[in-house]
Parts: sequence; structure tokens; C-alpha cells
Amino acid sequence: MPSVAAAAFDSHGPALALDVGGTKLAAALVAADGTILASDRTPTPAGPGIDGSVIWAAVTELLDRLYLSAGSPALAGVGVGCGGPMVWPAGEVSPLNIPAWRGFPLRAHIAARYPGIPVRLHNDAICMVIAEHWLGAGMGRESMLGIVVSTGVGGGVILGGQVLNGMSGNAGHVGHIIVETDGVACGCGGRGCLEAVARGPAIAAWATERGWIPSRGDLGATAEALTIDARTGHQVALEALRRAGTGLGIGIASALATLDVELVVLGGGVSQAGALLYGPMHEALRQYASLGFTRSVPVVAADFGPQAGVIGAAALVHQGAAYWIAD
Amino acid sequence: MPSVAAAAFDSHGPALALDVGGTKLAAALVAADGTILASDRTPTPAGPGIDGSVIWAAVTELLDRLYLSAGSPALAGVGVGCGGPMVWPAGEVSPLNIPAWRGFPLRAHIAARYPGIPVRLHNDAICMVIAEHWLGAGMGRESMLGIVVSTGVGGGVILGGQVLNGMSGNAGHVGHIIVETDGVACGCGGRGCLEAVARGPAIAAWATERGWIPSRGDLGATAEALTIDARTGHQVALEALRRAGTGLGIGIASALATLDVELVVLGGGVSQAGALLYGPMHEALRQYASLGFTRSVPVVAADFGPQAGVIGAAALVHQGAAYWIAD
Repeated sequence: MPSVAAAAFDSHGPALALDVGGTKLAAALVAADGTILASDRTPTPAGPGIDGSVIWAAVTELLDRLYLSAGSPALAGVGVGCGGPMVWPAGEVSPLNIPAWRGFPLRAHIAARYPGIPVRLHNDAICMVIAEHWLGAGMGRESMLGIVVSTGVGGGVILGGQVLNGMSGNAGHVGHIIVETDGVACGCGGRGCLEAVARGPAIAAWATERGWIPSRGDLGATAEALTIDARTGHQVALEALRRAGTGLGIGIASALATLDVELVVLGGGVSQAGALLYGPMHEALRQYASLGFTRSVPVVAADFGPQAGVIGAAALVHQGAAYWIAD
Repeated sequence: MPSVAAAAFDSHGPALALDVGGTKLAAALVAADGTILASDRTPTPAGPGIDGSVIWAAVTELLDRLYLSAGSPALAGVGVGCGGPMVWPAGEVSPLNIPAWRGFPLRAHIAARYPGIPVRLHNDAICMVIAEHWLGAGMGRESMLGIVVSTGVGGGVILGGQVLNGMSGNAGHVGHIIVETDGVACGCGGRGCLEAVARGPAIAAWATERGWIPSRGDLGATAEALTIDARTGHQVALEALRRAGTGLGIGIASALATLDVELVVLGGGVSQAGALLYGPMHEALRQYASLGFTRSVPVVAADFGPQAGVIGAAALVHQGAAYWIAD
């Protein structure tokens, strides 16, 4: 494998950005203005008994391929978004959706391959929120809450134009705000969490338990298939999205009372359900967010799709003063 | 009335501190190290049809009496804590528990009486949290969440050693985190809020509706009387405190997921119920706060009692770099 250890540093050069997800690894070279100069992706190795080193090999292969094919430019740094939890800013990651990595020193491993240039790593949901604040729906705002509704429910907070890290880099875990007091068990060990109600697989599972069978069998029992059926009036599918939207509204109301931010940006695949999710969410907000400083806060859709991850990871490098308050 | 307009400025002098509550006005001269040099108080004028100017007259009379009796020292400034909501940092206050003040320009009025010296005003719950961070149970911590359970449920947040204001000075309104999804109406217009479940009058009202009659008739149907009866085993009183403690635990779990702070400090009269409240609260935390960075956060009792208000108000003046990030 060609060595990339010779990557030179250029603070005006592109950032090499990596987004580590449970199903795919995405990489991009991102210019200082946020333009994606080149990108590539590969499936995340998965399966029973898989070793963490196999995933690391897939990461390095992807990064090398992209970097070499782009002519090995001098880099401003490497930015990484990865599923949590993690020890931050050390970047020892234990992604819920990558069981083979438990305490995996991802940041240190990447830093060893790219010596002499900044290597920065944050939660993937926080990277998505950073992308929306840097160049997307929250651009120029002093404060915002971003929520990503996907296979999990993640989030991040911008205050005073900077990312809120919290004591351990975990601020903004709004997926674990309690939205159903007598609620179902959550993967975190708690129950009634927003994530347990509104993440895609939870929406689909709730409907399946109530007799929903996807008309689009090729999509499986997914939130995407459920949204299609809800649009044609399937009552259980509609109710499943209503429950998720209500949970979202309750969670947003609680977060707004706590944070006092000026904007909420909602992204992630599940949020594409549109009005079927947004309607119940706004209804819940009308019921539960009644303080002057919470009831007027707009909730808008994210600008970026799946590429938010690499753009936010690049922002850790290019816009460190706002988004990298660590080391 | 003697004029105090001649108050000289001395950055090392004491702060004149005022705590505006629904039942009492408290004032103190507080040295730069937090020592209370002198203090005084008076009932807040109340009753149907009372005019806002009557309350303002009581404020000035109290401040003048204290200031003159202390020998009119040169002041570092005037710090004020007042019930919310308010327009902040302008200090136009509309305390829920003082109906005669709606948009009352308290900060401007005080500044006009004390020209040439800093006059700073914040939410009374935030002042109590500041006091605990400056010199109390949260001293030296980089981050904490403070909660005051009293006739209302207020709160405040310290992050990076500084108070979190939010966009409009309203961050930390944890009393309006949703803790009962099918919950009762709250004074804010929402429902299921922590405040609607755990504030003293709500605890007492819930028990009264279920047949509780205070054995200490002289105390009325208050949280204090209810706590006394709960200690002797009154089942409805116990259940009322259990419900409030559970709500507190759920609210804290949601706030911790959002904020990632290292400590929770609990104060206010209702928190004096002790184990009868703390037991159910910890039980709820065990159920609902399961993330690594939330489940290990200690919840401790506040160090200060009622004097927290004036100490925190004085800290706005004496410790402005940490607690007054405004104008």
C-alpha cells in the first residue's frame, strides 16, 4: 500500500474528510470554502466475528485511494466524523453501530498516518450540525440546535457561534431526552428516549408490531417504505409517523427550554417524511413549547443531505476557531 | 427620602445586592469575597389592584435604608436577581409572581438611582446557581446544572466556568422540560412541565385533590406541611413527593443528555424534603439516565439557603468575567 505519510501541510489546502458510519465509509477532499473537490465511499465491513483491524484497513484504503487519485495535495488537516459514544477529544471511538470497534483509537491511528498536520475528530451528528451552521440552513446564526433523525437520533448545539462540546464532547445528545415517560426501552439502557421513539428502525418496528406490512417489499420494513405507505393513507404507518413527530416536538420543546437557541435545523433520512412528521411535530410544539423564548423558534429542514458528514468533518479543520475548541 | 445618587464607585468595594421575590424583597451589602456585611428585607407589597410604583417605592426604601445604615460606602456596583420572565440584559421584568410589574424597567430604574457604577440584573434562579458555583456546592467546577425547587422550578447552567445565557438570557429554564407527556397544565401555557409537577404548590395541590389534609393546619396546604406528614407515613403525601422526585429525575436526565455537565446542584425550599424527594429522583435517574456521561453525574444539595439570591446577585458585579457576559 502506498505510503501517505509524506502529506505536506498547507493551511490553505483542502481538508481530507472522513465520515465513519455503520453501513458506509465516506471520504472527501474539501476546499477551505466547503467545495467538495473529490469524494469516494466504500461499504463498512460488517458481519459476525469481524475484526476491528478489517474496518481500519478499509478506512486507510479509502483514504489512500482518494488522496492519491487527487494528486496528493498538501493538506490543511484531516477531519473525521464518527458515530458515538467516544472518548473525546482523544477520539477513542466505540460506535454503537460498529461493534468491532470498542475504544478504538481512531484519531491516534489517523494522526500516526498523517504526522505533522492537524487531525480532528468529533461525533458524526455534531459534524452534520456543524455543516449546517457553516454553510447550510443555520449559516450566520449565533445559536442553533441541530437534530439528525436517521438510524439513530443525534444532535448538536451551536452557542455564541461555536459548537457546544460539554464536559466530555457529548453535549447535544438530544436523542436521549425523555419524550415518553412510560416509554419503550432504548439502546442506551434507558427508556422513553426520543431515539427509542423516532429513529427509523423504531418507527418501522412500532408499525410492524401493529400489523403493517410494507407494500414496497423490496425496501423491507424501513422508515422509507413506511413513509411511502403513509402517503397513500395507511393508518398504522400514519400513526407511527405521528408518534415520532410528537416525540420530536416534545424533545425539541425540552431542549429549547434548556438551551435558549434561535433556530432548530432538522436533518437525516427520516426527516424526509416531510409533513407527515413535521405536522405532528409542530402540533406538539404548540402544546409543549409555550414560553416566549421557545414558542417562536423556527424549525427548518437541513440544507445538506448525506454529504453533511464530510463537510462538517472538514469544518473541524477549516473553521477550527468555531468548531474545534479542544486540545 | 435621602438621595443615594452620590454613591461613589470603588471596584474593590462591596456590591449592593437585591433579590426580588414574590413574597419578600431582600437586600445585602456583599464584600468582594462573598461575605455578607449587612442585610435587610421587607415584604413585597402585594394585593389586588396594587400599582407597580408601590413595589418600586418599597425597593428604593429598602436599598436606601440598608445603604445609609452601612455608612454609604463606595460601591463596586449593584447586582439584582429577579423572577422571570424578563427582557435580558435590558432588565425589563415581568415576574410571574409580581403581577403589578409587566415590562417594568427595573435595571434602568436602578441605574438611574446609582449613576456611574455597574448595575447588573439576571433571573433569580440563575443568581442562586451562580452563588453555588462561586462559593457553594459547585465551587471550582467547570460545568454544572443548578435547579431551584421552590414555588416555581428554575435553573441555570455553568459551562466552561461561565454562566450560560442563551440567546435571550433564558437558558437553563429546566422547569419547562417535559416530564409527564400526558401531564397537567403548566403556568407557562404548556403541559407536563417539571414545574407543573414539582413546584411546592403543585405538590400540595396534587395531594389535596387526593384527600390530603395537613395535620399542621397552621402551615396551610403547603409543601412544607406535606413533607411533615410524609415523614410520619401519610401515603398520599409520600406519593406526592415521589411523583415530584420522579419528575425531577426525568428532567435532570433530559438536561444532562443535552448539556453534558459534570454536576447537578439542587436547592430551594422543596428540596429540603430530603430523602423523600431524593430517593425517587435517584430511582428515576437510574431508569432514565443511562449514557456513560449522564449516569455518573452526582446530584448534590445546595450549600446556601435563601441568601443564595443576594450572593449570586453580588457575583454579577464581583465576578463579572464569569457571570456577566452581557452589554
